[in-house]
Amino acid sequence: MSAEPSSVPPASSPSAPRYGVWLVGARGSVATTAVVGCAAVAAGLHPPTGMVTETPDFATSGLPPLASLVFGGHDTVDCPLPKRAEHLAEGGVLPHGLPAAVHAELVAADREIRPGGPTLRDADAVPARTDDDWIDVFAADIRDFADRNGLAGVVVVNVASTEPAPAAGALPPSSLYAAAALRAGCGYVNFTPSTGLHHPALAELAASAGVPYAGRDGKTGQTLLRSVLGPMFQQRALAVRAWSGTNLLGGGDGAALADPAAAAAKNAGKERVLADTLGTAPEGEVHIDDVPALGDWKTAWDHIAFDGFLGSRMILQTIWQGCDSALAAPLVLDLARLLLRAGQQGITGPLGELGFYFKDPVGDGPASLGEQYTELKRFAARLSDTARPSHDAGDSGAQR
Amino acid sequence: MSAEPSSVPPASSPSAPRYGVWLVGARGSVATTAVVGCAAVAAGLHPPTGMVTETPDFATSGLPPLASLVFGGHDTVDCPLPKRAEHLAEGGVLPHGLPAAVHAELVAADREIRPGGPTLRDADAVPARTDDDWIDVFAADIRDFADRNGLAGVVVVNVASTEPAPAAGALPPSSLYAAAALRAGCGYVNFTPSTGLHHPALAELAASAGVPYAGRDGKTGQTLLRSVLGPMFQQRALAVRAWSGTNLLGGGDGAALADPAAAAAKNAGKERVLADTLGTAPEGEVHIDDVPALGDWKTAWDHIAFDGFLGSRMILQTIWQGCDSALAAPLVLDLARLLLRAGQQGITGPLGELGFYFKDPVGDGPASLGEQYTELKRFAARLSDTARPSHDAGDSGAQR
Amino acid sequence: MSAEPSSVPPASSPSAPRYGVWLVGARGSVATTAVVGCAAVAAGLHPPTGMVTETPDFATSGLPPLASLVFGGHDTVDCPLPKRAEHLAEGGVLPHGLPAAVHAELVAADREIRPGGPTLRDADAVPARTDDDWIDVFAADIRDFADRNGLAGVVVVNVASTEPAPAAGALPPSSLYAAAALRAGCGYVNFTPSTGLHHPALAELAASAGVPYAGRDGKTGQTLLRSVLGPMFQQRALAVRAWSGTNLLGGGDGAALADPAAAAAKNAGKERVLADTLGTAPEGEVHIDDVPALGDWKTAWDHIAFDGFLGSRMILQTIWQGCDSALAAPLVLDLARLLLRAGQQGITGPLGELGFYFKDPVGDGPASLGEQYTELKRFAARLSDTARPSHDAGDSGAQR
Amino acid sequence: MSAEPSSVPPASSPSAPRYGVWLVGARGSVATTAVVGCAAVAAGLHPPTGMVTETPDFATSGLPPLASLVFGGHDTVDCPLPKRAEHLAEGGVLPHGLPAAVHAELVAADREIRPGGPTLRDADAVPARTDDDWIDVFAADIRDFADRNGLAGVVVVNVASTEPAPAAGALPPSSLYAAAALRAGCGYVNFTPSTGLHHPALAELAASAGVPYAGRDGKTGQTLLRSVLGPMFQQRALAVRAWSGTNLLGGGDGAALADPAAAAAKNAGKERVLADTLGTAPEGEVHIDDVPALGDWKTAWDHIAFDGFLGSRMILQTIWQGCDSALAAPLVLDLARLLLRAGQQGITGPLGELGFYFKDPVGDGPASLGEQYTELKRFAARLSDTARPSHDAGDSGAQR
Ligand SMILES: NC(=O)c1ccc[n+]([C@@H]2O[C@H](COP(=O)([O-])OP(=O)(O)OC[C@H]3O[C@@H](n4cnc5c(N)ncnc54)[C@H](O)[C@@H]3O)[C@@H](O)[C@H]2O)c1
Ligand SMILES: NC(=O)c1ccc[n+]([C@@H]2O[C@H](COP(=O)([O-])OP(=O)(O)OC[C@H]3O[C@@H](n4cnc5c(N)ncnc54)[C@H](O)[C@@H]3O)[C@@H](O)[C@H]2O)c1
Ligand SMILES: NC(=O)c1ccc[n+]([C@@H]2O[C@H](COP(=O)([O-])OP(=O)(O)OC[C@H]3O[C@@H](n4cnc5c(N)ncnc54)[C@H](O)[C@@H]3O)[C@@H](O)[C@H]2O)c1
Ligand SMILES: NC(=O)c1ccc[n+]([C@@H]2O[C@H](COP(=O)([O-])OP(=O)(O)OC[C@H]3O[C@@H](n4cnc5c(N)ncnc54)[C@H](O)[C@@H]3O)[C@@H](O)[C@H]2O)c1
Ligand code: NA
Ligand code: NA
Repeated sequence: MSAEPSSVPPASSPSAPRYGVWLVGARGSVATTAVVGCAAVAAGLHPPTGMVTETPDFATSGLPPLASLVFGGHDTVDCPLPKRAEHLAEGGVLPHGLPAAVHAELVAADREIRPGGPTLRDADAVPARTDDDWIDVFAADIRDFADRNGLAGVVVVNVASTEPAPAAGALPPSSLYAAAALRAGCGYVNFTPSTGLHHPALAELAASAGVPYAGRDGKTGQTLLRSVLGPMFQQRALAVRAWSGTNLLGGGDGAALADPAAAAAKNAGKERVLADTLGTAPEGEVHIDDVPALGDWKTAWDHIAFDGFLGSRMILQTIWQGCDSALAAPLVLDLARLLLRAGQQGITGPLGELGFYFKDPVGDGPASLGEQYTELKRFAARLSDTARPSHDAGDSGAQR
Repeated sequence: MSAEPSSVPPASSPSAPRYGVWLVGARGSVATTAVVGCAAVAAGLHPPTGMVTETPDFATSGLPPLASLVFGGHDTVDCPLPKRAEHLAEGGVLPHGLPAAVHAELVAADREIRPGGPTLRDADAVPARTDDDWIDVFAADIRDFADRNGLAGVVVVNVASTEPAPAAGALPPSSLYAAAALRAGCGYVNFTPSTGLHHPALAELAASAGVPYAGRDGKTGQTLLRSVLGPMFQQRALAVRAWSGTNLLGGGDGAALADPAAAAAKNAGKERVLADTLGTAPEGEVHIDDVPALGDWKTAWDHIAFDGFLGSRMILQTIWQGCDSALAAPLVLDLARLLLRAGQQGITGPLGELGFYFKDPVGDGPASLGEQYTELKRFAARLSDTARPSHDAGDSGAQR
Repeated sequence: MSAEPSSVPPASSPSAPRYGVWLVGARGSVATTAVVGCAAVAAGLHPPTGMVTETPDFATSGLPPLASLVFGGHDTVDCPLPKRAEHLAEGGVLPHGLPAAVHAELVAADREIRPGGPTLRDADAVPARTDDDWIDVFAADIRDFADRNGLAGVVVVNVASTEPAPAAGALPPSSLYAAAALRAGCGYVNFTPSTGLHHPALAELAASAGVPYAGRDGKTGQTLLRSVLGPMFQQRALAVRAWSGTNLLGGGDGAALADPAAAAAKNAGKERVLADTLGTAPEGEVHIDDVPALGDWKTAWDHIAFDGFLGSRMILQTIWQGCDSALAAPLVLDLARLLLRAGQQGITGPLGELGFYFKDPVGDGPASLGEQYTELKRFAARLSDTARPSHDAGDSGAQR
Repeated sequence: MSAEPSSVPPASSPSAPRYGVWLVGARGSVATTAVVGCAAVAAGLHPPTGMVTETPDFATSGLPPLASLVFGGHDTVDCPLPKRAEHLAEGGVLPHGLPAAVHAELVAADREIRPGGPTLRDADAVPARTDDDWIDVFAADIRDFADRNGLAGVVVVNVASTEPAPAAGALPPSSLYAAAALRAGCGYVNFTPSTGLHHPALAELAASAGVPYAGRDGKTGQTLLRSVLGPMFQQRALAVRAWSGTNLLGGGDGAALADPAAAAAKNAGKERVLADTLGTAPEGEVHIDDVPALGDWKTAWDHIAFDGFLGSRMILQTIWQGCDSALAAPLVLDLARLLLRAGQQGITGPLGELGFYFKDPVGDGPASLGEQYTELKRFAARLSDTARPSHDAGDSGAQR
């Protein structure tokens, strides 16, 4: 499936190492698009548009080739992946014909998906599973995946539905999965606004785990824009008075965010970007409306009222019409490769250098996209550091 | 020029040095707004919104205080500056009451405006003035201004109407003014897309003049946006397929740009920004429509068609509604101060570090606003360099 | 104050009849703009832009001239009208200089404003006023106004802050005022979404009162647009799937509508227009955000997803940027004149023919603006009916 | 042509009359979409969204059923219709799978397409064909079509590329086709802005031909909107100061309109709608940009600057994103059916009642869409007139 012409054994040859990408929410739009897209790009069917790790700055970073990635994951629904991909093609998210072209890869990934939880049914089970039971089960699933496939490393990526903010104390599902990733010795990426590793009960574990992790909440549309427009106003000393926004979206994400508690989690990240780039939080609200008629397509409207010289009142409006899954999936692939390689290189702990990808990044990096991009390129160089010996892949997670 | 009632010697006291800002197009909207705004901010009537040189990064750059600036210039019309300011207040460009509050400063600047040219009437004069005659007259006007006011330095800023691209060989008016600035030993800023110093006949003169210069064409609205959005698409590896734009504006600039030849000059700069930030020029045209009903307010609509992962088609649209003069005037003040200080510090030649301000900057700097901002801050630090002795102001132009 | 050249006694001569406009919410933006605008147009200072009753179709309807209108009203705040008008000029709602030019008329109206209620303070009064007490006091204020000014008729127009939907049973303030209008024998217009006459307890009274009335909620921006766009989709057999909207506004109305209960009242009317013109209610929500930075200016964004032939997905977006008070005030003047004339002509009961003006009109008229306009012109003709004797003005309300 | 499996005689059974639709530009996007859509709706594969003649008001008009329509036409290119349809499906104009589902109907229509002209090659032919020769050839093609298929009537619809405005005197191709329609005794619809029957040399012929005709230029997007927004401003007495617009489109129509002469023809119709509905032509230009990246999808942005009460400046912007062919095709089917039925009923001459469909309608009807819709419904009733004897279909063109 490799598109790289090569006389040495190709990445997908039996002898070349293979790496695992464990998707929490593996039957969702983002996950399915990532699986389809990885296969399509690896096979040379499509250019790697939207994948930053395929640009020249990453050529010598030693990232695992796309063709070396093996997918699995957890989900609470059981729609087969090939069928899910067909739905996405009907909705215009995937090109017609592509699900058929990568059918084998979809079937392979589908076989590696295990039941997630806790679901409503689980709540009635007797005896009830404890949090620790759940973490054990999830971690075992991940380790089995690594063993069965002889993987040189595994990264866990959360792309499950956005959770409501959890009740104080309780570990929400996203945190159970995050803990399972650590228990299995895997790097972890939280692509959603859910709690994940950001839970007080996991702080100590995260600090001592010896794996790299990154998050929170992929920055793909309105917030991506805000991370370049905010700095523009600040650099030009223009006074932003009010920044208002409305997002219309359908699909699974739209339905999940129709829950005000889930939407609140999402909005916190959006507002953080503004406050961080402008130095102060302007007036204005953000709405997220579930509009099933739009399917997986999103429209985001932003209205920015700002003052110029001598108090003149000006307005910028932006309208972003994009397909969220198509924006998110290449970033998921980027992040998986970066974390896998970081793990190999012995880089552990929070990866603040990946702020480029997130609304609410771990660490203390800059908030403007331009500076985040500079940091990302620096990280790319660090990954390829030839001075220090690369760790044996066997050390980097999901291994005995 | 200070409006602060004070018994101690004000910033503009006889003993403090004063600096000249010579505006070509001195009765235009941008020029008038700059004169009014400088007085208003110096007097504490308005905050310096939109003036980058008033942000903390410039605090130790040794820039001339706003209250030390003295205005004069050339224009081919003779509407008195106080009346021009009243018109701008009626059009909502200046706050009501402000022209009256800074009436003294407007009258003072008005007294320092000399007839520009060549006008149609000049074409019939016998004997006809040669280019060299014109340059001499303009240079003498500038030197007189410096002498009469005992100025420690003068910078010439072109804010006259955009010219059509000149016939091969001929020196257009903007180039006559630029040559006069050099002849008078003054720094020069071309805030318009007109030729100015970019004329082959002036290349040698510019190289040997020993003054700093900067340009071309202030970046205030649609192009400002493009200089942050272009890099965003490039950094995210998204493929821009078409970038189309329409600008609606009235006022003097709208009328001038209704001439297709003038609009062509303007558009070249806009397109350069896209090609430089995207690495390739996408499909799409730019229109500039004269809509007198909008007065000095501009609406700029941009429509960007781009491809995401797996060929998905997405669209970003932006609508910018701003007052061009209010966006341009603080930048004119910034540039005047930066060039005056550069002259003092003995910095000469093209100032590529000021690409932040221009659509089509001199030199080879970066095209993304974020990187240009970094360069600007580096330049601010260089201006304050305490290591090297500051030159005597008397050296820095328009002086005997 | 009349601008009509005339040899017969001008409308405002002592002998010509004068008519009263009693504004509930008399110190608000809409009310103040109506008072200023009536004076300005009557004096020939401004053309009657936005006043439908000044178009030729109404020339022979016998409407009271603008110069014959006398203003008064209730309000719960006491900012003097001239000062309120100055604030509106500072906010760009009224032209600078206009409040000064019509100062006399503002002072005159200010003198006729009486304390409204019930306010929080009233709640503590001992003994507490009953609903009937309130109605009596309000009705007496209106009758005094008519007597003192020798008015030939009075119309009451509700332009007070939008109320939250009232508790079951209780008469909200808007209903107390509406009942007072009936008790005083005056026509009544509800320009707001508040309850007014739409209260079960007032149904019988309204039916027997023998006065004309109209409402609810002036149609000035987003809903005006919807009333022409909805019919377009329906006439073209295009299937609207989702109609979403966001309104950003500041000013007093913005603050009042920040209360979700008040916003809910407002939105009901907006949605009725869609359901009535499309034949079915599409998906989609409407948001009203209070954005103080916008002052009395409103931005309304609408996003309409519709299907064309063979299921093709299309989108229309509209962005309306208007000054609500400037849109509402001429309609308030129109309605006052139409109701005064209707009263004179003995036309009583709900005026369904005025659906052109309202989001949620009384009666069963058409929902498309075009058909409503046709009805309005028919009503204009009916008012001028010369066949039937005009009633003596003395009959038409606010009289002993 | 019916896809309904049925044992009873289908609508297109040998005994039921069949009607011809002769498309000039038969291999274009609009034509192909009309052929595909007619088959799809007739077969019950899609609802008749966008077809006004399928709404209840037309139920008793006696229109020919969709299943009774037979397609043929002229074109100058020879891309087979099934292939053209596949291209449209790839571009998202037609649903995937639909071209295959109606393959038989596409093949049938393809067989009835004859070479159009004059092409560049024809210009070199010796001896050169005269205008009259061309008309004869075209008319013969149409008559053959009618005979071969035993049609009860034929209508000619021009959906060929927009022509540049013709040189004085010369008959442009669209007029040759129009004359051929008359010569063949067929009704004629000009769905484009090309000259067609609007040529002085054809005036007499048109007057005496005894067939119905309609045109010019289908009203599908920006102009459709203008025909409801213009009346809104006029009815509300709001003063439109400037109406500016930009259209971005790709596809064949985009390429044709990249020719300024063709665009000028198109824009004339757009401006007529504004002048007719507003009573005066506002400031502002219209641009049509060819943006191949958009394919058959169009974005139209309109910016309307208007004055409200007391000179307040307001703005409405609209953004229309539609698929032109999907908007046009159902109207082409509507018009074909209406003209066929009109011919049957002996209605001849210019059909001003069809202004609803056109930018620049024949006759003197109203310009607002609402009133045009009322006229259309009246015409629908007239068609079903049972009082007067229906003409024998054999009289109504393309016979003998
Ligand atoms: N697409 C973007 O641009 C973008 C950007 C940032 C963040 N995100 C986030 O990515 C996530 C996924 O988005 P999507 O569009 O794919 O949503 P989706 O609804 O299509 O998929 C979510 C999947 O998660 C599964 N799931 C729910 N609860 C689970 C659990 N407890 N355990 C395992 N699986 C569970 C669901 O069954 C579903 O298959 C969302 O949280 C979204 O907010 C997306
Ligand atoms: N405002 C912005 O945001 C912005 C941004 C970039 C560039 N610019 C440029 O700044 C310039 C000024 O814009 P403006 O809005 O003030 O225009 P304006 O029409 O209000 O003013 C231009 C002035 O130049 C004068 N002028 C014309 N020819 C002259 C000559 N030969 N000699 C001397 N004076 C002459 C005119 O009489 C007029 O007073 C334009 O070239 C514009 O393109 C403006
Ligand atoms: N402007 C528009 O386009 C528009 C359109 C439709 C409806 N409306 C409605 O018109 C009303 C007025 O809008 P505005 O912008 O003038 O608001 P505003 O806040 O400026 O004025 C409302 C006035 O009502 C007064 N008020 C409040 N409670 C009262 C009471 N119990 N008795 C008497 N007065 C009372 C307030 O003190 C204030 O002066 C609102 O309900 C608004 O929703 C406005
Ligand atoms: N789609 C709309 O919404 C809409 C609205 C109004 C008007 N129209 C008009 O409809 C026409 C067709 O649009 P389209 O998108 O189908 O364009 P298109 O380019 O896809 O098709 C035009 C067809 O006409 C053919 N043609 C050109 N010259 C010819 C000639 N002399 N004789 C016969 N055929 C000839 C071309 O070969 C082509 O197949 C255009 O004039 C367009 O302006 C379209
Ligand atoms: Na940047
Ligand atoms: Na209408």
